[in-house]
Amino acid sequence: MRSTPSPEAAPAMTPAASLVFTTLLSNGPITRAETARRTRLSPAAITKAVRPLMELGYLVEGVDEGARPAVGRPASLVWVDAGRALFIGIKVTGDEIIAVLADLCCRVRIPRHVRLKGRDPEKVLPAITALVQELLTEADGFGVPVRGLGIAISGDVDRADGVVRYSPFLEWRDVPLAEIVGTATGLPVTVDNDVRALTVAEHWFGAGVGLSNFALVTVGAGIGCGLVVHGRVVSGAHGVAGEIGHLSLDPLGPLCHCGNRGCVEAIAADPAILRGMREATGKNVTAAAEALDLAHSGDPGVRQVYARAGEAIGKAIGSLVNLLGPERVIISGEGLAAYDLFAEGIRDAFAASAFGTASQCDVMTRPLPFEQWARGAAATAIQSFIGSDTYEE
Amino acid sequence: MRSTPSPEAAPAMTPAASLVFTTLLSNGPITRAETARRTRLSPAAITKAVRPLMELGYLVEGVDEGARPAVGRPASLVWVDAGRALFIGIKVTGDEIIAVLADLCCRVRIPRHVRLKGRDPEKVLPAITALVQELLTEADGFGVPVRGLGIAISGDVDRADGVVRYSPFLEWRDVPLAEIVGTATGLPVTVDNDVRALTVAEHWFGAGVGLSNFALVTVGAGIGCGLVVHGRVVSGAHGVAGEIGHLSLDPLGPLCHCGNRGCVEAIAADPAILRGMREATGKNVTAAAEALDLAHSGDPGVRQVYARAGEAIGKAIGSLVNLLGPERVIISGEGLAAYDLFAEGIRDAFAASAFGTASQCDVMTRPLPFEQWARGAAATAIQSFIGSDTYEE
Ligand SMILES: [Zn+2]
Ligand SMILES: [Zn+2]
Repeated sequence: MRSTPSPEAAPAMTPAASLVFTTLLSNGPITRAETARRTRLSPAAITKAVRPLMELGYLVEGVDEGARPAVGRPASLVWVDAGRALFIGIKVTGDEIIAVLADLCCRVRIPRHVRLKGRDPEKVLPAITALVQELLTEADGFGVPVRGLGIAISGDVDRADGVVRYSPFLEWRDVPLAEIVGTATGLPVTVDNDVRALTVAEHWFGAGVGLSNFALVTVGAGIGCGLVVHGRVVSGAHGVAGEIGHLSLDPLGPLCHCGNRGCVEAIAADPAILRGMREATGKNVTAAAEALDLAHSGDPGVRQVYARAGEAIGKAIGSLVNLLGPERVIISGEGLAAYDLFAEGIRDAFAASAFGTASQCDVMTRPLPFEQWARGAAATAIQSFIGSDTYEE
Repeated sequence: MRSTPSPEAAPAMTPAASLVFTTLLSNGPITRAETARRTRLSPAAITKAVRPLMELGYLVEGVDEGARPAVGRPASLVWVDAGRALFIGIKVTGDEIIAVLADLCCRVRIPRHVRLKGRDPEKVLPAITALVQELLTEADGFGVPVRGLGIAISGDVDRADGVVRYSPFLEWRDVPLAEIVGTATGLPVTVDNDVRALTVAEHWFGAGVGLSNFALVTVGAGIGCGLVVHGRVVSGAHGVAGEIGHLSLDPLGPLCHCGNRGCVEAIAADPAILRGMREATGKNVTAAAEALDLAHSGDPGVRQVYARAGEAIGKAIGSLVNLLGPERVIISGEGLAAYDLFAEGIRDAFAASAFGTASQCDVMTRPLPFEQWARGAAATAIQSFIGSDTYEE
């Protein structure tokens, strides 16, 4: 076993070490005893997991000086040294790239936004690389290395191979993103589905902390869903999971880009709302913000479009809750801007479709701007770094 | 630590011991090294977990005499001593009680079937108690104690409290089954949803062995679903999970007993098929077997009823696969008797609704007679005995 810390060595992560690390990320500073309780590891296993991480400086142990008791020894606490390493997280939307430089506790140190000039890989990949180089230069000032890059892309993403198999929104097929950007930047690259990446961040730092079972439903350009079951993000045996947008609700409903009719996405995503809006008003509405203004002006036909969308989302959440029984469903995404127009439809349809005690599930909304999605991408890079992505029962 | 085995002591199960035990149940006899590999526990943790279980006689270690190598030491293997304890499993259908006396490896030693004279608890509970007493008498001949009783009931079952909250099929509400039968028989009683119980048995001994993510879809009097995600059965934060039967497929579809329209169950379960059959033929068909005969006789209207049911099941499986991405979906239940009539509809609807690579999921059928469901109930009693039901990340 090594006895002197090396600033460049990456920690060799056992499943126990990885579990301890993620527990401390969400809950630290806590005592070793509390770490043992939360991980269900023995004190001896905690010691074994913690020691090499302390030697490398990723974990630190000390006393909470602010909480020193009047009598007796103060409790010794363990936490992640946030400043020990840096990570870059990137989210690509249709219009821009959002990047963050984050520390080891996934706190955003520097955010960056860059407009996109096109969606094809030939335009997007050089823009990503340039943005990463810019943040690498900024990172020099922190005196610690950038240990990984996470990129979050909507659609069918093969994380293990680092390949975007199919992103309908960007119209990408089989783009070996990790390999290309890894070669260009020299960083270890993790590519994941964007909603899954955001779910990791919510699980570690957001409304999913402490929950073993929750769902994140995102409403906007598409309808997405990230799932945590038994404490881990569901990624699907063949890379597809969380495709709540293609639950089929109505065989006579509008045609979906997947080829079926009446999918949630074909009723409730932005393009469906804009289409409904044009049909209801005869006006050429092309942007979500414009549609929102029209709806708030009170046109009943327009409000009906949102009500129908809310009903579809509520039914989908009901189906999800009936299948998985999560403790909480978090509704987020750009579509939240129109939540007052969706809310009643969602509430009523959820109540009607939730089966028995499933209706007790806590359904909540939570705004998560795109910077949080980029933070989620950084969280996937931290996952890869600490090996928590490869641990599976 | 105790040094002499006591025939009556129940093992004190740590999470690691429970994990080792279930791994050996499904995979034993295997070496300690293989046990460590499969559980991802250290050799030291395996030793610590295995020792007290060996002292109590639940695990044994020895040499596979049939595979003695020509040179060198034969491998030492560990396995569960099937004969060390007995369990009783019970499944209640609408017409009968099926009970099994099973050993610690959940192998059925004695099966029993008893006709029911009614479905209300006043009729069913005494019948269960009498059947258990009968099997307890039989168990005397084995010279080892019966250590637990599992009862599997369809509907919303609170396993932790041992209460059947609502069984639409039996028309039970808030029946404290574990308490009543426990008092009457003197056994520790585990009550669980019947499909979840069958899923445990499939995971340990059936088509789910070695899979971390699979679904079991049961077709018959209702449409049920058991889910294993990240290696563990999903039971729902509020006790409801796997309610695939109430996925809403068509807002203009037939009325379901849950109050919604177009649920899978309202299209594809036995009562829906019988109703469709009566509408198509004008005949007063009241039993599933009768309906099946009619369909096989070739009436196109009748075949159409099954085709529509198959389509609903296929869509539901597609939705499930899109959400969770399981490695395998096992279709079972009494409804399999009509599988040739369902098959095409299921296949086509699944192919149309599975999103991208999700269609690679292995969808298979597997007949599981009610004795297997009772075996599943015994498996839940073994779970409770070895403490694997309380372990949660
Ligand atoms: Zn679709
Ligand atoms: Zn229903």
